[in-house]
Amino acid sequence: MFGFLRRPKVRIDIPRLKPRVDTSTYPKVNLAELTPEVLPYLGQAAYVQLAVFEEVSDAIAAAPTVAAKQVLAPAASQALDKHERLVAEIRRRVDTPAEVMAPFTVGIDRYRALVKGSDWYEQLASVYLTAGILDDFFSLLAAGLPGDIGPRCIAILDAETGRRAIVDVLSEAITADPVLGSRLAMWGRRVVGDTLLVARSAIHLTGNPESDEQRIEPVFTEMIAAHTRRMDKLGLTA
Amino acid sequence: MFGFLRRPKVRIDIPRLKPRVDTSTYPKVNLAELTPEVLPYLGQAAYVQLAVFEEVSDAIAAAPTVAAKQVLAPAASQALDKHERLVAEIRRRVDTPAEVMAPFTVGIDRYRALVKGSDWYEQLASVYLTAGILDDFFSLLAAGLPGDIGPRCIAILDAETGRRAIVDVLSEAITADPVLGSRLAMWGRRVVGDTLLVARSAIHLTGNPESDEQRIEPVFTEMIAAHTRRMDKLGLTA
Repeated sequence: MFGFLRRPKVRIDIPRLKPRVDTSTYPKVNLAELTPEVLPYLGQAAYVQLAVFEEVSDAIAAAPTVAAKQVLAPAASQALDKHERLVAEIRRRVDTPAEVMAPFTVGIDRYRALVKGSDWYEQLASVYLTAGILDDFFSLLAAGLPGDIGPRCIAILDAETGRRAIVDVLSEAITADPVLGSRLAMWGRRVVGDTLLVARSAIHLTGNPESDEQRIEPVFTEMIAAHTRRMDKLGLTA
Repeated sequence: MFGFLRRPKVRIDIPRLKPRVDTSTYPKVNLAELTPEVLPYLGQAAYVQLAVFEEVSDAIAAAPTVAAKQVLAPAASQALDKHERLVAEIRRRVDTPAEVMAPFTVGIDRYRALVKGSDWYEQLASVYLTAGILDDFFSLLAAGLPGDIGPRCIAILDAETGRRAIVDVLSEAITADPVLGSRLAMWGRRVVGDTLLVARSAIHLTGNPESDEQRIEPVFTEMIAAHTRRMDKLGLTA
């Protein structure tokens, strides 16, 4: 069940240099051959968005002020909207979206527990960083879907995240408390590894490890660069 | 702070007869003179919707199956949408929605704790029953707002609730387990009292108890009748 947590071959080196490239340089075609079938893709992507929604909702419930609750609301709303739109895509194909998502719930729930964090700030940092990676990843993976479903999924996943407020809340707290900043920098390095393992578990490997790795590596390098930019936005060194 | 919890004069008799009237017979004008100022109205209504959202989100997180999570998502989404639209109305007037909501957070949070329930089914029953009463109430109260804000608030509050799925989940569980049904029937009688006290706390009393009561009583009677219809839908005797 947790097979993806036991694949030590994935080397995840987080670059300490500033990224040199823009997200638009993502080698979008490279993952196409590794994209899973449409339904498993949709089921996992939909459940990931539901998990993001639940995590933001939990952060809203735990928020110390009503102002914080209120600025986080759009992040919950947008994740839920993405979930519902992906479920609608499932329903265009089958009537049982819950069954399509079911194979992924245990793995994702376990991952959520790993990256939840020990307080509200770690939780917010996790949501911002991990949802960023996963949106990017499922959007890249969608390029390999057949027909017009790929572009539709990309449009869903690239939509407004509502997570800008998380950056504001965290930057302010980090500026006020350097110790928090150094704790969150470590935390950010930790969650990226767990998240890339989830991403990797969603890839349909061809069975040729060498060519698979050649396809995966540049994409993951760019995903890590995008992660580094998100860390920068928070004022944290990746 | 909790003044509204200490007003024993409010008699809340829950009628055991089937309702004889439709929601459309609500005496909409009666509360008009008791409507608070626009900003306190919006602040309280917006925070109530945020509380409904948080409670549904919590129920989604606690749901036993991914199918249950998924059918509850629209209820969270709709409550959040109502919250955001009410906050947008606040922002048309002032830049500080959190401050406008702040006076109501402690009372509503305390109320939420009272009606939360001891398990998932009680929590779902609470959301369905209490959010139904509060949507009705704030919609009725909106009739007394000046200018075009009243109709706009009514349009927001009367929009789709997404809570139909709660009825399905609960009816099925009640049919399968008569003991649960009798527990939830008692629970439904309990939460209506707490909710009507919250409603009452939102009313701007004129200072003439006799005329105030004359206005409030028929409205509350109709709200209780609507509650009874919601209990019916769940298969419960109010």
